[in-house]
Amino acid sequence: MSANPAITRSQIEKLVRESVYSQLGLAAPKAGPNPLVVNVSARHCHLTPQAVEQLFGPGHELTPMKWLYQDGQYAAEESVTMVGPRSRVISNLRILGPCRELNQVELAYTDSIALGYKIPVRQSGNIKGTPGCMLMGPAGFLELDEGVIRAAPHVHMNPDDAKFYGVKQGDYMKLRVGGELGVTFDRIFVRVSDSFKLEVHIDTDEGNACGLTPDSLVELVKT
Amino acid sequence: MSANPAITRSQIEKLVRESVYSQLGLAAPKAGPNPLVVNVSARHCHLTPQAVEQLFGPGHELTPMKWLYQDGQYAAEESVTMVGPRSRVISNLRILGPCRELNQVELAYTDSIALGYKIPVRQSGNIKGTPGCMLMGPAGFLELDEGVIRAAPHVHMNPDDAKFYGVKQGDYMKLRVGGELGVTFDRIFVRVSDSFKLEVHIDTDEGNACGLTPDSLVELVKT
Repeated sequence: MSANPAITRSQIEKLVRESVYSQLGLAAPKAGPNPLVVNVSARHCHLTPQAVEQLFGPGHELTPMKWLYQDGQYAAEESVTMVGPRSRVISNLRILGPCRELNQVELAYTDSIALGYKIPVRQSGNIKGTPGCMLMGPAGFLELDEGVIRAAPHVHMNPDDAKFYGVKQGDYMKLRVGGELGVTFDRIFVRVSDSFKLEVHIDTDEGNACGLTPDSLVELVKT
Repeated sequence: MSANPAITRSQIEKLVRESVYSQLGLAAPKAGPNPLVVNVSARHCHLTPQAVEQLFGPGHELTPMKWLYQDGQYAAEESVTMVGPRSRVISNLRILGPCRELNQVELAYTDSIALGYKIPVRQSGNIKGTPGCMLMGPAGFLELDEGVIRAAPHVHMNPDDAKFYGVKQGDYMKLRVGGELGVTFDRIFVRVSDSFKLEVHIDTDEGNACGLTPDSLVELVKT
């Protein structure tokens, strides 16, 4: 449960950005109420309490290993083995906690291609009609009829952030990532909640495409 | 050596685009002299004639398996096994022909991460100071001191295309890819030659990030 370094990184970015703009004789863009954090989500799954018990044994609860940027969210010590439709396997698929009310596996296209799978792009929680898979844990296995998706890129923000950017729940924004592989993600779905901290989630395909690093310059832009 | 379907795809795209613009009551953008083709380059290597002989035996020459969009370029029947610095392996690394004057391996970041490798983004041919690897073929192996890169996304075009877009060799353009995972690649390097056909090359990370399919709407834009 180490301190999250993202705040520090953002502060450094802010200083560098202000310095660069200042040297160019330009006014820095008006800063938002909160620092912009962009994180890459590697493949993972969310499970119900019942699924955790089926895979890890009666009464088992997830153990937090690493706290994530959103309050209360964590990568668990527990992982599962995922088996796709052609019996190909992804080992050590990380479970994110706390438990949810549905089982969902989030993969990048690269992962799904390796599994021999075609998966749809969905918002988290919208899994109706998506393909399933089998999950295996130390105490048992679990057949999912549906729930395997590629999560659409999205930004979490609280109402203050939404007001600053002039957007609302369900809008799309652009995320510009600078550098030699500069990319603009044109379809960042906006999710607003009082409990959210300002954070963009992209997957490993998207992170690798733009070569995102902790010192990448990032900018969120209203469409 | 089948007929290349890209022309047909482009023609279909052109018709669809014109129809959509027409239904919206807008004038379609002025068409360029040639259809825009965007292709994803999976990991591959280019070899010298000497390297081919070392890996496949004295006097061996590459056998074309599939012709690529650029005239005279092909995926060879031959492939090699690549060994990275941590003894991790990529099997069946495709060789592209014809032979060149230097040995070069082009990987996506996903591939390099799987190999435990950090590789730089370079224009093809600019391999000075890049990491090396070992290649293995049926008749021998070849140690490369350098030459493993991630190829920067780029567009091939002839001078007529360059004139139409108002760009020149060495410029950067944007490539917009539509769809639910819409992405704009902000740094597409322009390569101009009389022998080139208009074609953007992105790698598998970039192709997977934007979910490029044959029916994706694509647009090349001057920066």
